[in-house]
Amino acid sequence: MKSVQSIIETALAAGQRTLSEYDSKLILADYGIPTTQESLVGDLVGAEAAAKWIGYPVVLKVCAGEAVHKTEQELIELGIMDAAELKRAFERLSPKAHEFGGQVLVQEMVKGSRELVIGLTRDIQLGPCVMFGLGGIFTEALADVSFRMAPLNDNDVREMCGEIQGSKILEGIRGLKPVNLDILSHCLKSLGRIGLDYPAIREIDINPLIVRDDRPLAVDALIVLEKPQHRQTETAKSRGGLDKFFEPGSVAIIGASSTPHKAGNDVIQNILANEYDGNLYLVNPKGGEILGHKVYASINELPDEIDLAIIILPAAVTPQAIRDCAARGVKAVVLSAGGFAEVDERGESLQQETLRAIRDTGIRAIGPNTSGHTSSPHKFTSTFFPLGKIPRGNVSYIAQTGNFATHTMRYIKTGENFGVARVLGMGNKLDVEESEVLEYYAQDPETKAIFIYLESFKRPRRFLEVACKVTRSKPVILLKGGATAAGADAAVAHTAALASDDRIIDGVLKQAGVVRVYNYSHLFLAAKAISAMPLPKGNRVSFLAPSGAMLVCLTDLCRKQWGLSVPDVEEKTRRYLQDISPPFIRMRNPVDIWPAATVKGVEFGYRKGTEAVLRDHNIDAVVMILMITDETGVPPLDFIVELARRYPQKPLYVTFTGQKKHMDAAKAFLEPQGVPTFPLIEEPFEVLSILARCRQAMER
Amino acid sequence: MKSVQSIIETALAAGQRTLSEYDSKLILADYGIPTTQESLVGDLVGAEAAAKWIGYPVVLKVCAGEAVHKTEQELIELGIMDAAELKRAFERLSPKAHEFGGQVLVQEMVKGSRELVIGLTRDIQLGPCVMFGLGGIFTEALADVSFRMAPLNDNDVREMCGEIQGSKILEGIRGLKPVNLDILSHCLKSLGRIGLDYPAIREIDINPLIVRDDRPLAVDALIVLEKPQHRQTETAKSRGGLDKFFEPGSVAIIGASSTPHKAGNDVIQNILANEYDGNLYLVNPKGGEILGHKVYASINELPDEIDLAIIILPAAVTPQAIRDCAARGVKAVVLSAGGFAEVDERGESLQQETLRAIRDTGIRAIGPNTSGHTSSPHKFTSTFFPLGKIPRGNVSYIAQTGNFATHTMRYIKTGENFGVARVLGMGNKLDVEESEVLEYYAQDPETKAIFIYLESFKRPRRFLEVACKVTRSKPVILLKGGATAAGADAAVAHTAALASDDRIIDGVLKQAGVVRVYNYSHLFLAAKAISAMPLPKGNRVSFLAPSGAMLVCLTDLCRKQWGLSVPDVEEKTRRYLQDISPPFIRMRNPVDIWPAATVKGVEFGYRKGTEAVLRDHNIDAVVMILMITDETGVPPLDFIVELARRYPQKPLYVTFTGQKKHMDAAKAFLEPQGVPTFPLIEEPFEVLSILARCRQAMER
Repeated sequence: MKSVQSIIETALAAGQRTLSEYDSKLILADYGIPTTQESLVGDLVGAEAAAKWIGYPVVLKVCAGEAVHKTEQELIELGIMDAAELKRAFERLSPKAHEFGGQVLVQEMVKGSRELVIGLTRDIQLGPCVMFGLGGIFTEALADVSFRMAPLNDNDVREMCGEIQGSKILEGIRGLKPVNLDILSHCLKSLGRIGLDYPAIREIDINPLIVRDDRPLAVDALIVLEKPQHRQTETAKSRGGLDKFFEPGSVAIIGASSTPHKAGNDVIQNILANEYDGNLYLVNPKGGEILGHKVYASINELPDEIDLAIIILPAAVTPQAIRDCAARGVKAVVLSAGGFAEVDERGESLQQETLRAIRDTGIRAIGPNTSGHTSSPHKFTSTFFPLGKIPRGNVSYIAQTGNFATHTMRYIKTGENFGVARVLGMGNKLDVEESEVLEYYAQDPETKAIFIYLESFKRPRRFLEVACKVTRSKPVILLKGGATAAGADAAVAHTAALASDDRIIDGVLKQAGVVRVYNYSHLFLAAKAISAMPLPKGNRVSFLAPSGAMLVCLTDLCRKQWGLSVPDVEEKTRRYLQDISPPFIRMRNPVDIWPAATVKGVEFGYRKGTEAVLRDHNIDAVVMILMITDETGVPPLDFIVELARRYPQKPLYVTFTGQKKHMDAAKAFLEPQGVPTFPLIEEPFEVLSILARCRQAMER
Repeated sequence: MKSVQSIIETALAAGQRTLSEYDSKLILADYGIPTTQESLVGDLVGAEAAAKWIGYPVVLKVCAGEAVHKTEQELIELGIMDAAELKRAFERLSPKAHEFGGQVLVQEMVKGSRELVIGLTRDIQLGPCVMFGLGGIFTEALADVSFRMAPLNDNDVREMCGEIQGSKILEGIRGLKPVNLDILSHCLKSLGRIGLDYPAIREIDINPLIVRDDRPLAVDALIVLEKPQHRQTETAKSRGGLDKFFEPGSVAIIGASSTPHKAGNDVIQNILANEYDGNLYLVNPKGGEILGHKVYASINELPDEIDLAIIILPAAVTPQAIRDCAARGVKAVVLSAGGFAEVDERGESLQQETLRAIRDTGIRAIGPNTSGHTSSPHKFTSTFFPLGKIPRGNVSYIAQTGNFATHTMRYIKTGENFGVARVLGMGNKLDVEESEVLEYYAQDPETKAIFIYLESFKRPRRFLEVACKVTRSKPVILLKGGATAAGADAAVAHTAALASDDRIIDGVLKQAGVVRVYNYSHLFLAAKAISAMPLPKGNRVSFLAPSGAMLVCLTDLCRKQWGLSVPDVEEKTRRYLQDISPPFIRMRNPVDIWPAATVKGVEFGYRKGTEAVLRDHNIDAVVMILMITDETGVPPLDFIVELARRYPQKPLYVTFTGQKKHMDAAKAFLEPQGVPTFPLIEEPFEVLSILARCRQAMER
């Protein structure tokens, strides 16, 4: 038997882009993937002997390196019942086989009512990725497939099988046997292994993988080759030194300005407003003094061993400034200027020059084209958008946008009332990129949860490796901008055609435990929730509403859309809820609280009702929908703050119905005291849905 | 050939619950649905003759009334190639056929790689409903099916084919021919016709409907019978008289109270606050005067010919009050009391008594257990929740909840700044029900759009008939509470098992052009939008944002989630946008407005940019994401009101980023002047998604 390596080398030497079905299956079989009985034959006599040995009915196929899409090209005869039919089929296909420079393949006819597809594609950034889904005609019609990055573990396989819409096909439905998942799992893991072992294999399609009785069997197979590319290997680990950004002992501002509203002035104002307590050095050729600080005329005059320099100079002089800073022993720089590769060719060449300066000096750099970064535990920010004091908190952001240093941070501060630990605007990511920032946040005791906005991954594989670890202890929530369904329309293999960026990203993020969101607003709504309250222990929600319609609609959405369960409460809770309510209402979860509130007072009803479900062991999180109008009464809301403090292990969120001015006042009262509120009744549930997925990822 | 009627009668007489496959197909064939060639045989000789006539390969099946789920029960032999195999198969199946009291069926073996399912189920309220979807094993694994109520028209069939996820299977994929849609359409319409023609047919399953080449063919079929039920026929039309509720010339309050904060007092306060200008009569045994109005001691003392009475009395005395009112010539009553069937058995019996009073007197009644109704053009409300003046507007509500007369109306008034035309709280719907209210709103010149919250349909078929018409001229948006996936687990036929309430409702609402929403908040957010702005002409959106990340995320969501297109603008628009922007930014749709705003001022940028896209012929609706912070500037916002007035044909919505206080001020300034605003950037798009579907329904 030919070795896998020699099959590949022979084919590449012959200039083949694809392996024949026969050779493809030899490789699969070598990895223990079950394949059909089959034989390559040179003449009719051989075909007859093979058919006899295999047993009728058989299939005849043209087998050659370039014979792909055999059904469409009529290079196949199915269900051959006897020697006469075999002869007719052979006589039709044999000349075609010669045209392709191949042979005729005699194959057993496999019957099975379930067709799956499995495959491999080599993502340019992620390397080999494995696909699983519905096969045959449904591969194209439904695109019901799931991807994971190689290597796959048991959990990956289990998730892949569970997340396709047609997953029920694997069960014992309609009198069929359940699919043997050990074999299926072995097939999927083996595909990943092949991809890792043989860089010359670009794609593998096994379609259909027919389930005969309960056993998956590769009935057709295609392997696509390529000359192994010399790809830039990702640096195994971070170069380190991010502490110089987040905990700088001394900072220089290159391009400090005395003119209000200029970036070089605003950044000083921000640093002072945040009460930075390290040494601050300003540099401007004019010298003098700005905001009470001495100004150095040049970088060369700066003292030794400054940790961080914020370079607020035009793009053209940025590279030289980096070299000058490095010469003075500066360890890290924030490059604020825009006008690089994001603009034009001139900028692109400046960017290359900047990159050389970074590489030559070994300095660490954020940007260019960054709106800066923030480290509230260190009372520091390099942001030049006027923000004043940035409230300290426990969530951290990685943002491939300036928003989280500018208007969105302004909104968070004024509209959502929570603080941040670290924020880093990636800019053009010439040096510091998301995976090492993620690694820094992972071990950062100030960071409880990590929120990320990215439009591209600079080192996706490394990012996912880091994420895979950190998500076991901290929530990582990511919004990926720029999702497209571009896909590779011209791809030879189905696997590659289905491997649009977005489908692969979806799979690998799940694999790494990263929770994907799609709404920009969720980046601050979920952050607000996690910042004030613990992560829910699970997805079991109780909520109190003053209206049956709200109870009904929200329960529907919890079950159908948000993946939240609204379980029965414990019997003692139920009895307690019944005790505080008038007898005509039958109490349960969700909690119809208005009868109790009407009879015994709004505060009494909501306080007792909420406490009952906060105490309940069947419940992981509680949402209070508070009705406040002049007529029905607006109680003092201290009781909500007290409840939140008394039950610190369980999230409690508040939303409203009634009069706007009371809602606004309640928000202004509750949020600074650590109780998150939401204007629309669906929002706290959307947030819980996200956070319950984080918990699930943590326990995967 | 037996007639359809005689097949059914014979089977029912024999106590059969299901028809045999053979008889089922006779009925289908009678309606022109293509079926397999087949023959019932009594012995092997007959089987051999039939097989010869049909041509090998053939299929042998046990054919009997109760022989269902033949595959699971091994009552079928596929792919019989010759006489020897036929003999073996016949000998195995023939005894089984006798057990079932049936015969053996010899059938042609149909090959085709596409299996569909079509079927019929008789919904207890909607009558016969037709199903279409993926067949064979996928019927169970994917439940990828769509329903419509019989009779079906061409548009229904087109939509059903398009809305299953696997719809691509109907196209010419993988070298297959496109499915002959004329035949498929005929099959679906015929099933509906059979359901209408034969009430004794409860369910039909055709699974699989195999596509041979391009032609669908019923390969297996099952008809389930029942003794035709005597079902209450829905009254063909409304009894009329709803104008007495919405335009009452005179109103009596039975149970008027002089005690503030009692319902009988609050309702008077509400009526006075709304400046009702008809005659108002108060009734209370105590007599005297309340709020300057004379109080009658009893209903009997009231003057003749009062249009409407609001009865605010305990449940127990409500029936007598109705009779008394009718005796005085009152045409319509609003029954406010709770404590009827929603509470207990005593209430149930009171409800029956109330119903008798209504029937006996012929009076029209809303409720009982209603929070009342509102008719702002007539300056009238029967609501007893203190609301004060209810702002007049052009949207109307039908609500199976009191919320829209209580706290949600309070929120709409104080938080969303729009008004309503008519609101009707259905309560227990003893008399007036949703379909006649819908009919009233349909012809009501004051009502521009209709929003509905329902937990059940009292006369669904009639509701849908009315909806089907009104949705061609007015948007109808419905939230159905209490969706469950209960389904009929024990159902014999697949069609019935898949016919969960929710799937059928989904289909029939689409059929009627009703746009279904799931978020309670959308009932007022979409209402606010349609109340101030025209319905968009289509789904083509332009938006202006101050941030690349927002442009990217929202474009992703428009395409992937909201069904909105973000098309290229006209070339002249593009050039204009480029002219007002600095050269380094490449302008297009969506509009990156911040560079222009930075260079030429926030007002200039947003004004010019927004006007350009409002003028553009490729654009149906515009969303402005306004960034307002102290530092970047907060322009006077009159320009937005001016733009909205200058382009009254195109919706313009505003949302924000930046500082909360400026957002609140902008909302308070813009909304009273007819420009809807939304706190979170996704909300205006969610609303546009709903309204674009309304437009699509209108043009169906």
